[in-house]
Amino acid sequence: MEKVTATIITIGDELLIGQTIDTNSAWMAQHLNAVGIWVQRRVAVGDSVEAIVQALNEESQTTNIILITGGLGPTADDITKPTLCKYFGGRLVEHQPTKERITALFASRGLPTLDRNMAQAMVPDVCTVIDNMRGTAPGMWFDKDGKVFVSMPGVPFEMKGMMEDSVIPKLVERFNPPGLLHQTLLTAGMGESFVAERLVDFEAGLPGTIKLAYLPSFGLLKLRLTANGKNREEAKRDLDLQFEQLKALLEDITVAEEDIPMSEVIAKLMLARGTTVGTAESCTGGGIAAAITSLSGSSTYFKGGIVSYANEIKQNVLGVKEETLAQFGAVSEETVREMVAGALKVLNTDYIMAVSGIMGPNGGSEDKPVGTVWIASGDKNRIVAVKHHMRYDRKRNIALTINAAMNQLKKFIEGKI
Amino acid sequence: MEKVTATIITIGDELLIGQTIDTNSAWMAQHLNAVGIWVQRRVAVGDSVEAIVQALNEESQTTNIILITGGLGPTADDITKPTLCKYFGGRLVEHQPTKERITALFASRGLPTLDRNMAQAMVPDVCTVIDNMRGTAPGMWFDKDGKVFVSMPGVPFEMKGMMEDSVIPKLVERFNPPGLLHQTLLTAGMGESFVAERLVDFEAGLPGTIKLAYLPSFGLLKLRLTANGKNREEAKRDLDLQFEQLKALLEDITVAEEDIPMSEVIAKLMLARGTTVGTAESCTGGGIAAAITSLSGSSTYFKGGIVSYANEIKQNVLGVKEETLAQFGAVSEETVREMVAGALKVLNTDYIMAVSGIMGPNGGSEDKPVGTVWIASGDKNRIVAVKHHMRYDRKRNIALTINAAMNQLKKFIEGKI
Repeated sequence: MEKVTATIITIGDELLIGQTIDTNSAWMAQHLNAVGIWVQRRVAVGDSVEAIVQALNEESQTTNIILITGGLGPTADDITKPTLCKYFGGRLVEHQPTKERITALFASRGLPTLDRNMAQAMVPDVCTVIDNMRGTAPGMWFDKDGKVFVSMPGVPFEMKGMMEDSVIPKLVERFNPPGLLHQTLLTAGMGESFVAERLVDFEAGLPGTIKLAYLPSFGLLKLRLTANGKNREEAKRDLDLQFEQLKALLEDITVAEEDIPMSEVIAKLMLARGTTVGTAESCTGGGIAAAITSLSGSSTYFKGGIVSYANEIKQNVLGVKEETLAQFGAVSEETVREMVAGALKVLNTDYIMAVSGIMGPNGGSEDKPVGTVWIASGDKNRIVAVKHHMRYDRKRNIALTINAAMNQLKKFIEGKI
Repeated sequence: MEKVTATIITIGDELLIGQTIDTNSAWMAQHLNAVGIWVQRRVAVGDSVEAIVQALNEESQTTNIILITGGLGPTADDITKPTLCKYFGGRLVEHQPTKERITALFASRGLPTLDRNMAQAMVPDVCTVIDNMRGTAPGMWFDKDGKVFVSMPGVPFEMKGMMEDSVIPKLVERFNPPGLLHQTLLTAGMGESFVAERLVDFEAGLPGTIKLAYLPSFGLLKLRLTANGKNREEAKRDLDLQFEQLKALLEDITVAEEDIPMSEVIAKLMLARGTTVGTAESCTGGGIAAAITSLSGSSTYFKGGIVSYANEIKQNVLGVKEETLAQFGAVSEETVREMVAGALKVLNTDYIMAVSGIMGPNGGSEDKPVGTVWIASGDKNRIVAVKHHMRYDRKRNIALTINAAMNQLKKFIEGKI
């Protein structure tokens, strides 16, 4: 069976001047992949009729499915709908169910419905309407020469709802895609090129239907195997076999046998043990706690955290000794150890992660250059502190420290440090 | 003078299966725009020779500059370099300075230099090498038929360094681009369609060289004016004139007269007043503190925060009364007010932001559905609490609450609430 391919076209000047980071495409690609549809290209174009038409013409040459997001809003820079209507030779007609939904939506917020909102209920008579249950702009499904074109709003929340509720099920029904499967091993502690060196024979022995990719991500390295098989069962069998081999080769650096964030690694550890965790953060400024609580259900194992950015908070809330700070400084083994001890008392949790470091660009010294971070993991029996050195800019150093703290806690709990 | 245009081609299967979110393109577009280079398209393709060659052929038809990122790593899935070498008719030769840099880099980390790392010092003899001061893979600059092609690593930190140090200055020297300028007004509190209604006459009166865009972003709305003028001075004059009119029309909902994150709005407020701020967060789990400390220099005005996820922490650390929690619940006006009062004492800051809410998907009730959030702002004289209702998924509700808390503090300080 042939690969079913899709191209994603995102429309909006904000993507071309860099004002908006495109997170939609990644989400769409993940969810299309999960049902076996391969995204072969992603194209971003501006709010211009010529650019949109050019993209539609070009992309429809080489793909089965074209998914379009953006440019459906109520304002004058939103030109996708009239452009598509003309492209597919239709004319705009009122869509009664959408009109009723828009009116009800504004009424529920106590707001009047403006003409420009009502205009969103006009749709090309040559499309099938995809209901938007979370906003005003309806989606549009066009069929032409065996290709499918779907236009959706650029608002992530609305697009995701339409994809899950309607577009993906309809695409699967229409194209019945073959197996396209991924398995990812999450590792930490060894650089990409050294892992590759260890995998030379493994890579050389991979069958042609399976591909290996290396994806470094904030101190972690993901190894992703992709199988593109004749059918899902066969592809899955081949993939499982290779994944087992990969796992055996990288056992010492494996963090998880799936593509999950570190916060989920911690969640699984805590839930399996019925334990609780808390944080004492200086340089990450609450980022570890925010990562952990990004997961629904985290209140089961996360009780809270202290963001002790100023030394005064380290002393007054966490009980770090004034002498410790004076003698060793805020970024020191002694301080992070006292942060753990203090937080264990204040937060009354089974485990504590504590970090103190210099994220840059300022604040470094010869002794403690930018990137110096002390990370401590502890419980009531012992505390382990490890010095790290992050080599990047502020944002990346913070992200690296957040991952490193969680990975260190995992190793601490497993008795590896 | 004609527009100077660029296309960004990103290479990597991880972009097409949605494993990686492309933040590079937005950064590149911003920085190209800043020097007057208009990004007209962005294309993402997989790790496939055919896909790369097709993209090079197509994009070079319509643009002056092609910037390529990704696929330069030391592993077998990185095929960009040999593909480009063949495309431009060159052969690979050793680049001595890169070889020396790679050797020194690995030596400084106490690691051996592997053959696959040394292979990164091989470059096509038909390119100009762009030095990579932050990693192993060098950049490559090709000239062909009046077009410029630049290949850079996909690692954001390395790409950014090369763009800033070499690529952007060289492109400006080569193409001398005309004026392309943006000004953005940041607003909050009024929906896109209502703002558009107010701006009907303004939009109709805009000269042809100036474009208005609406960019909703987590409870904020950015209004961006873009001028594309014959020269930078003229474009700037026209833009300033229109921006003044826009400001006058939206004075009541303006948050900032530039495109900055809310954390920077708070930074400016605090620095101007010489005051300090702290946080008491439940449902945002440290996200407000993390946003504030993402800025370098935030230690001047941010002392710390309490992430009181569990009620036990609200009581023991912030001193919220057990009766308050029992009678009104954790998500209530009474609780957030006590959180502010407690945090003012514990953290000893001039201002406190406190939040407590239900971010979903679970935890809602008929009384307090998912999305219910109480936000309080306070100083030693008064505390103001406002109930909000977020209508989205967990991640977005958290992001909205973080922005709303900072915006509310701004209004509190300015005496508007």
